Amino acid sequence: MSDEAPPPPERARRLPRAVRERQILDAAVQVFARHGYHAASMDEISEVAGVSKPMIYTYLGAKEDLFGKCVQREANRLLEAVQAGVQPELPPDMQLWHGLRSFYRFVGEYRESWTVLHRQALTVGGTFAAEITDMRMRAIELVAALVVAAGTRKGLGEQAEFSGTGLSAALVGAAESLADWALDHPEISDGVLASWLMNLVWLGFNDLVEGQVWKPSDA
Amino acid sequence: MSDEAPPPPERARRLPRAVRERQILDAAVQVFARHGYHAASMDEISEVAGVSKPMIYTYLGAKEDLFGKCVQREANRLLEAVQAGVQPELPPDMQLWHGLRSFYRFVGEYRESWTVLHRQALTVGGTFAAEITDMRMRAIELVAALVVAAGTRKGLGEQAEFSGTGLSAALVGAAESLADWALDHPEISDGVLASWLMNLVWLGFNDLVEGQVWKPSDA
Repeated sequence: MSDEAPPPPERARRLPRAVRERQILDAAVQVFARHGYHAASMDEISEVAGVSKPMIYTYLGAKEDLFGKCVQREANRLLEAVQAGVQPELPPDMQLWHGLRSFYRFVGEYRESWTVLHRQALTVGGTFAAEITDMRMRAIELVAALVVAAGTRKGLGEQAEFSGTGLSAALVGAAESLADWALDHPEISDGVLASWLMNLVWLGFNDLVEGQVWKPSDA
Repeated sequence: MSDEAPPPPERARRLPRAVRERQILDAAVQVFARHGYHAASMDEISEVAGVSKPMIYTYLGAKEDLFGKCVQREANRLLEAVQAGVQPELPPDMQLWHGLRSFYRFVGEYRESWTVLHRQALTVGGTFAAEITDMRMRAIELVAALVVAAGTRKGLGEQAEFSGTGLSAALVGAAESLADWALDHPEISDGVLASWLMNLVWLGFNDLVEGQVWKPSDA
């Protein structure tokens, strides 16, 4: 207890449980994204986190629980990031634009999150896949509200209401699939990705509500 | 061996192996679609197929092999159905239109196939998910060829080449996601589903190659 006693080494210092849990989850997302759920080892997660295996089991449970907590945390982070980007006072197309940019910014910055959410969670299956399905449903409802709002602005409330969820399901599928593609093309910025989708989908929708429709040429 | 001997009962008659295998696969797709991979039982498949369990194991293997063979067969049937619908002498938009209609007709007629391919195979994971990823890649390449062809017709070959696979990934994601939505809305016809996508995506793409673009209103 003299003044000269050295401070305890970093690893041995008692950190608050919340900090430890964050370290473990950060490490787990990294390792799961790199190797996939089945090949990922608790040894490597323990090493990357700098937290002993028994402590991981005590704090967050076995591999399956740990993966579940990763999926949950990353899904919430993603939804929060997208919602933070949307400015509800703007017109629907600008809301969608900002939402898409936030989405692609998140995917670009947190590639490992998206890998765990989209590539891993679905392929591991079971309750994880169910969690992703829930997240998708929430995203589709969010977009459907924008589509209906846009249709209503143009006096096409009923028509927009009718096809709104179908079109939104299509848009969310397009956004996810493009995000997956973007993982392999990190040189494309979030602005470019978002504007591709806006151009494809929003201009198409605009034409549609203006009464301009594509028709098969033999009809 | 007298003329009066009754014919052997249907179940006991010796059928060619190919016929038996088809019966088993038909039954398996039905049972997997109904209960999901994990909850599906070989007993029920045997009962629905009218083929004994030992014979199923001999012909097509255990549950995992059987599921793999279902995924493979249904993936091939789907791709064949879509390719049969495409008429390569037509302009790119008409090719896409016919391809999409064939796709939605298949999903509407063979709901169980699509359920096994899209909802089950991904959530079971492992090699099945890899098979689906392969099928998606083939679909994206097919669509990319159409997008590039359309861009080239308008003298925009290079630009279309650049963004072609990204846009096609978006389109395939939109088509899958809408098919999934359509499973819960059987009252919407394949023509309506296909024209929603054409209107959304093709008109949007057309605007894009005509130089008409969506821009954020604050830019």
